[in-house]
Amino acid sequence: MSDYLPPVTDIRFAMDALADFASISQLPGYEDATPDVADAIVEEGGRFAAGVVAPLNRIGDKAGCQHSPDGTVTTPDGWKEAYRQFCEGGWNGIGSPVEYGGQGLPGVLSMAVKELVTSANLSFSLGPLLTAGAIEAINRCADDKLKQRFLPKLVSGEWTGTMNLTEPQAGSDLALLRSKAEPADEGSYRIFGQKIFITYGEHDLADNIIHLVLARLPDAPPGVKGISLFVVPKFLVNEDGSLGPRNDAQCVSIEHKLGIHASPTCVMAYGEQGGAIGYLVGKPHRGLEYMFIMMNEARLGVGLQGVAIGERAYQQALGYARDRVQGRDAVTGKDGVAIIHHPEIKRTLLSMRSRVEAARSLAYLTASWLDRSHAHPDVEERKRYLLQAEFLIPVVKGWATEMGVDVASLGVQVHGGMGYIEETGAAQHLRDARITTIYEGTTGIQANDLVFRKLMRDEGATARYLFSLVQQTATECSASGNDSLKAIGLKLAVAAETLSRSTLWIATNLRKDAAGVLTGAVPYLYQAGAVLGGWQMASAALAANKHLASDGSAYSATFLKEKISVALFFAQHILPQAAALAEEVTNGAISVTALADDFWLG
Amino acid sequence: MSDYLPPVTDIRFAMDALADFASISQLPGYEDATPDVADAIVEEGGRFAAGVVAPLNRIGDKAGCQHSPDGTVTTPDGWKEAYRQFCEGGWNGIGSPVEYGGQGLPGVLSMAVKELVTSANLSFSLGPLLTAGAIEAINRCADDKLKQRFLPKLVSGEWTGTMNLTEPQAGSDLALLRSKAEPADEGSYRIFGQKIFITYGEHDLADNIIHLVLARLPDAPPGVKGISLFVVPKFLVNEDGSLGPRNDAQCVSIEHKLGIHASPTCVMAYGEQGGAIGYLVGKPHRGLEYMFIMMNEARLGVGLQGVAIGERAYQQALGYARDRVQGRDAVTGKDGVAIIHHPEIKRTLLSMRSRVEAARSLAYLTASWLDRSHAHPDVEERKRYLLQAEFLIPVVKGWATEMGVDVASLGVQVHGGMGYIEETGAAQHLRDARITTIYEGTTGIQANDLVFRKLMRDEGATARYLFSLVQQTATECSASGNDSLKAIGLKLAVAAETLSRSTLWIATNLRKDAAGVLTGAVPYLYQAGAVLGGWQMASAALAANKHLASDGSAYSATFLKEKISVALFFAQHILPQAAALAEEVTNGAISVTALADDFWLG
Repeated sequence: MSDYLPPVTDIRFAMDALADFASISQLPGYEDATPDVADAIVEEGGRFAAGVVAPLNRIGDKAGCQHSPDGTVTTPDGWKEAYRQFCEGGWNGIGSPVEYGGQGLPGVLSMAVKELVTSANLSFSLGPLLTAGAIEAINRCADDKLKQRFLPKLVSGEWTGTMNLTEPQAGSDLALLRSKAEPADEGSYRIFGQKIFITYGEHDLADNIIHLVLARLPDAPPGVKGISLFVVPKFLVNEDGSLGPRNDAQCVSIEHKLGIHASPTCVMAYGEQGGAIGYLVGKPHRGLEYMFIMMNEARLGVGLQGVAIGERAYQQALGYARDRVQGRDAVTGKDGVAIIHHPEIKRTLLSMRSRVEAARSLAYLTASWLDRSHAHPDVEERKRYLLQAEFLIPVVKGWATEMGVDVASLGVQVHGGMGYIEETGAAQHLRDARITTIYEGTTGIQANDLVFRKLMRDEGATARYLFSLVQQTATECSASGNDSLKAIGLKLAVAAETLSRSTLWIATNLRKDAAGVLTGAVPYLYQAGAVLGGWQMASAALAANKHLASDGSAYSATFLKEKISVALFFAQHILPQAAALAEEVTNGAISVTALADDFWLG
Repeated sequence: MSDYLPPVTDIRFAMDALADFASISQLPGYEDATPDVADAIVEEGGRFAAGVVAPLNRIGDKAGCQHSPDGTVTTPDGWKEAYRQFCEGGWNGIGSPVEYGGQGLPGVLSMAVKELVTSANLSFSLGPLLTAGAIEAINRCADDKLKQRFLPKLVSGEWTGTMNLTEPQAGSDLALLRSKAEPADEGSYRIFGQKIFITYGEHDLADNIIHLVLARLPDAPPGVKGISLFVVPKFLVNEDGSLGPRNDAQCVSIEHKLGIHASPTCVMAYGEQGGAIGYLVGKPHRGLEYMFIMMNEARLGVGLQGVAIGERAYQQALGYARDRVQGRDAVTGKDGVAIIHHPEIKRTLLSMRSRVEAARSLAYLTASWLDRSHAHPDVEERKRYLLQAEFLIPVVKGWATEMGVDVASLGVQVHGGMGYIEETGAAQHLRDARITTIYEGTTGIQANDLVFRKLMRDEGATARYLFSLVQQTATECSASGNDSLKAIGLKLAVAAETLSRSTLWIATNLRKDAAGVLTGAVPYLYQAGAVLGGWQMASAALAANKHLASDGSAYSATFLKEKISVALFFAQHILPQAAALAEEVTNGAISVTALADDFWLG
């Protein structure tokens, strides 16, 4: 496996030129996060990710985690030490509340650090990702007593967190959830049930594990409105914060998975010895609502994984293509050239790189909007930014993760036969990436969320506003006087028009033909991803063009010209897909929905 | 892993209605292969594949092959017995020459059997596939003495064959090959060199292994014109056919791969103890030419693997979708329905199924053209069919294998989280499929072959003829009076027009902008795959429509209506991609070729 080279300048550009970090750092509460501080953090985060975390990626893949009959789980060699350094460096609490020991930095900046660590090692990054989710759930939904008891050590990383939603019969459909909670002493509850697919449900990295568990109270109504959220620690915590007895929560087994071998995916049994002690978070029966509050950021985090693995796979393929000598140069006729000189390899690498850049920009932009939705002084602006961010989140989650899988697969392809050999490391990226389109809601679930909630809840107002921004960018490109930008503007305008057409079709058919709309939902999400990604690439090209014209840009002319070239590639190779996807959305439903049940059930 | 259900009726339909098997069986030499005989063979082949070979698929994946320090390789439990039954059933020699004990059946019929065995177990199928290649090479290129000595036992399966092309520095570019051959006693040669990626280079299934090895003679010119082909048996063979001493050919190690774990991929060392005895096949320095003779059929065989794994992944996803209860029916509002009722799952399954069917038809059609190119009484017709088949082969190899990877990945997606767990078996299909776009020439190599050889060698005449058949089919659909067929005809005509446009662009730019054409070569191949696949789906729909109108069709009305439905889906969801791909071909080169070397070399 090749070394990981943190793409610090690309990340800075996405933060500065596209997500307008300078204005984020002027928002109340984020004043300490000046652009200079941000640069230093990204730089240092890159060093830590490349130097400490990345070298464990292949080791972890080979060794995996080991589960013992006594219920313990052992992480691979070196994992514990890296996690210790991660916590000591303050990386765990980078985005967490200051009052519990975190650094309270803007989400877009902690996203940059997350990208770096995830590129270095997806399996490693999942522990802190789940901990961050638990911190957010407790901080936003639990009472002060629970916050005081659990947050400081989750923020420091001394303890880690988990999310326990899935049961064997309840995956995407949480209405089918069966775990139970019975009232017990002193306002606590006894939790019973089995949970599956629990990431870092058990491990040896931390002194305690704080499980957030969905379960039903005795008086709960059926369905999703009868689910409550509980904190269930692995070790009970005494009043003074010290660890008490072991709770009745056991890791029964871990899964043998296609990838992310070093991330333990646990089957958790609660209450097999009389009931696991748990504490209600917030109010009864509102667990699903609380999960949804967190879900947006969790989904954005998984979308970022598509970017992170895509970047890593791209780097590895690029390095191999530069080294591997094979074949003749099609233009010069020179024999024995590195394969990077072959047009097909160039096209493939640009297809990888341009989509990674587009998805990165979209993810960072979304994070910056979330920051504004938290910190903007104007309440109306806060609302608007939240709506915009929430619209983009299923697009980022769905499109960026599908892109990540595809890019990792292209990375294998660039390696030829060597890509199929595990020791090369290219195949691991594909295996690891393959989960990202599934967990935190499959691409199909994201598409439903996009079409039925995010698109239509305000009668399409947010979508129309965003699409008007896209058209505005296309117009700016066309008016720029630069040939590449003009070509980009043209393609973007055409693609945006097809997206408006699909959107109109959905709005028109939503009530009269739900099945038809659902048939086109994933193609619609892909289309939105291509067009909005193209918008970000066009914005990047515009920004690069302005930097090129100004004295004293912080970026080199080479770097800026490359941004324009990659954006042009995206416009010519990726944006044309929008029209084909629009065909699927607007013209493809009948060939699916007209089929009778006999066809499906055999 | 689910059971494999041989798609016997689909295969029969592809053979009868699309490849016109009835007329193949009237060609000289194929008279014994009546349609009834063919049906019986497909039926029995399906039983054997499902009953004997399929149950070993997951076992083989888990256990893999074991390499010992003494150079032996042990196949997984049950492998030997299954291979024995395979040979005893006569399956190994089904398409081989009668004079050496084979059955001499048409290629399209042996393709059906190959599909069944490959769907059941790709790793298992590779041994016989390589043996068939060795048989063909020896039969077509070697002298009688070599034929007599090696063919009967290769045909019976008592011995297996291998192909030794790749060396560490010579993969796609065989000009870089270094293995040497020195003249030795009695017209034999001593072979020296290391070969990698040798499928079934060593194993315990057969008494002897016959290696076909590319190497250079002392007086060989450099480059690809100095390569000769040698037969190098693992055990030397005495005059009477009995086994002699062990040859100096050793398996040094086997690769740890992403998939096809039970197919041993060997590093072979020749001549480390004084030289491996080999026998020249045909004339000196013509090895590459001989390999190319076989390459067409080998590539078609790998294209078929895309169909076979796609079919298997589709079946498994379909079965899971029927069983897995999750969520609410979007139309009826009913809770707790199997996920097959969700429109997105239906769309995904149809995307899998329609492309598998299209690729199957293309592959069988190509095989039938090869049969005609061998057996048609008219020499001009033989030539024409050969040109047509050779045009389709890179399309089938490239498009069907990329499709197979994508379909296997969608199969994982339909399973949700369970797809990521290895014991489910969905992930194995993806891991196994991933090699098919690489070996026997990557998709990029196929695209080069398509554009620079197959398309242009006759100034585009074959392409124009094939495209005229496509337009003719579109016209027939439009004139059919059936609404679905009319819709198919319309989409097909539009897509075919975009393919003609891309073809014209390539023809115009081939000499003045080779790099630009090469940039669009893979998108062009994908476009050809979509359009020609769409043509076959339209032909299937036309044929089904005729059967529906006739009394006494051998197919049920349900089956025939489904063919039309699936073809309509392909027309509405896959064919629109052709226009986007045409954009990439005709408008996308400049954004790749204009980039200076600095951009690529960093």
